[in-house]
Amino acid sequence: MLGLSNTVVILVEPSGPLNVGSVARLCENFGIKELRLVSPRCNPMDKDAQLLATKGEKFLREAKIFPTLLDALVDCRRVVATCGRVHHGTIPLYSPEVALPWLLKRSEDVLTALVFGREDRGLTNDELRLAQKVLTLKSSPSYPSLNLSHAVAVVLYELHRLTDQLNHSTKGNSSIETEPAYPLELEECMSDAQELLLEIGFLLDHSAHARMAKVRALLNRAVIRSEEISLIRGMIRQIRWAIFSRAS
Amino acid sequence: MLGLSNTVVILVEPSGPLNVGSVARLCENFGIKELRLVSPRCNPMDKDAQLLATKGEKFLREAKIFPTLLDALVDCRRVVATCGRVHHGTIPLYSPEVALPWLLKRSEDVLTALVFGREDRGLTNDELRLAQKVLTLKSSPSYPSLNLSHAVAVVLYELHRLTDQLNHSTKGNSSIETEPAYPLELEECMSDAQELLLEIGFLLDHSAHARMAKVRALLNRAVIRSEEISLIRGMIRQIRWAIFSRAS
Repeated sequence: MLGLSNTVVILVEPSGPLNVGSVARLCENFGIKELRLVSPRCNPMDKDAQLLATKGEKFLREAKIFPTLLDALVDCRRVVATCGRVHHGTIPLYSPEVALPWLLKRSEDVLTALVFGREDRGLTNDELRLAQKVLTLKSSPSYPSLNLSHAVAVVLYELHRLTDQLNHSTKGNSSIETEPAYPLELEECMSDAQELLLEIGFLLDHSAHARMAKVRALLNRAVIRSEEISLIRGMIRQIRWAIFSRAS
Repeated sequence: MLGLSNTVVILVEPSGPLNVGSVARLCENFGIKELRLVSPRCNPMDKDAQLLATKGEKFLREAKIFPTLLDALVDCRRVVATCGRVHHGTIPLYSPEVALPWLLKRSEDVLTALVFGREDRGLTNDELRLAQKVLTLKSSPSYPSLNLSHAVAVVLYELHRLTDQLNHSTKGNSSIETEPAYPLELEECMSDAQELLLEIGFLLDHSAHARMAKVRALLNRAVIRSEEISLIRGMIRQIRWAIFSRAS
């Protein structure tokens, strides 16, 4: 079963404790194996970092510190680095949809790494070249760089989404679908409604069919269910009682 | 050309200025039209918010403040709300891949909204029911809730990714869809219906809210349109006349 539990998140020279704390929280959110910091420019146990880490506080406490990115990658076989640019002169950039599935093709016990750069300068070309693949989140040059923790959030979410897709490989939405009502149930309900609406003069003989067709279209679009039809028929019954049984 | 420029981001009762500031930055990152705040529990011009907003500072300055979510949705025809749960008892939850393309099917000048809830409590059921579709980022119950700004980052990124996909794809795009009714139109219709159904005894005070919630769920699933609401209100009017004006 694939998962993010064999993936480490590496931040190179992060300078903001709020960012580092937020990333620790994301590691907890997504079941990451470990947070690694290369020459951090702030203290991971800073109170601001701890504040933002919330339940991810252990990732801060247990974060491994390394002097260089090469050191931090010592035991990682598949490495994807991130880049804030749309195009790079010499290094090919891939979208997450291409780079991340490659990360997931790993064998059972292989460690993989996601590498993120400095808030202001990203990763150097030499650092980018330590990764087998570099991904970019930008698909158009029009918006300025994402905040570091937002970039991490998006990449981890995409990795999770693609993992889920691979694990379940059934497209479609996540809600459990209730079966629709039988056509006959809706038909009988529409008959009942039409009768009432004709009696009270909302429908006129010549336009009844067209107007009921609109109601039918609405209910079909909703893919109406049996219990909803029961609800509507209950309303029709009570309305009929109110009109024809009440004392004036 | 589709884009996020007709989409507003709405935060309901946000309490953290760091979160509000981060979200303002994301609005700048993704070319969002406007940031709206419903009864914010912090000051959007707080220095912490401004610090995190960086280039998105204008979204803070120009953020519109509303007392309720219904007010904030006054001019939005397509609304997607977010929910932190995997399953919801009564409201269908969709993955972003299903809910967001629906948002993108909008006509040219239609405003759409993405709604996010309180940091600790999310959105209430009544608030979720103001949206035609509710999305969940969770596909497995195993990880705890994302931080508010991370959830916004992921949703905006997904919307952007799907927009890009639609803009560049060579497949035929969806046929022109009729726009849904405004949330306020449906609200007024439901109010009207509830009043009538209470008067005739179909609804009882203690169960009225739950039963009307079922009706609302049906009509949201249908993504009901203005002319259909008019039809229903016409029925209500005629039914009322039949009950209260007829000679016995």
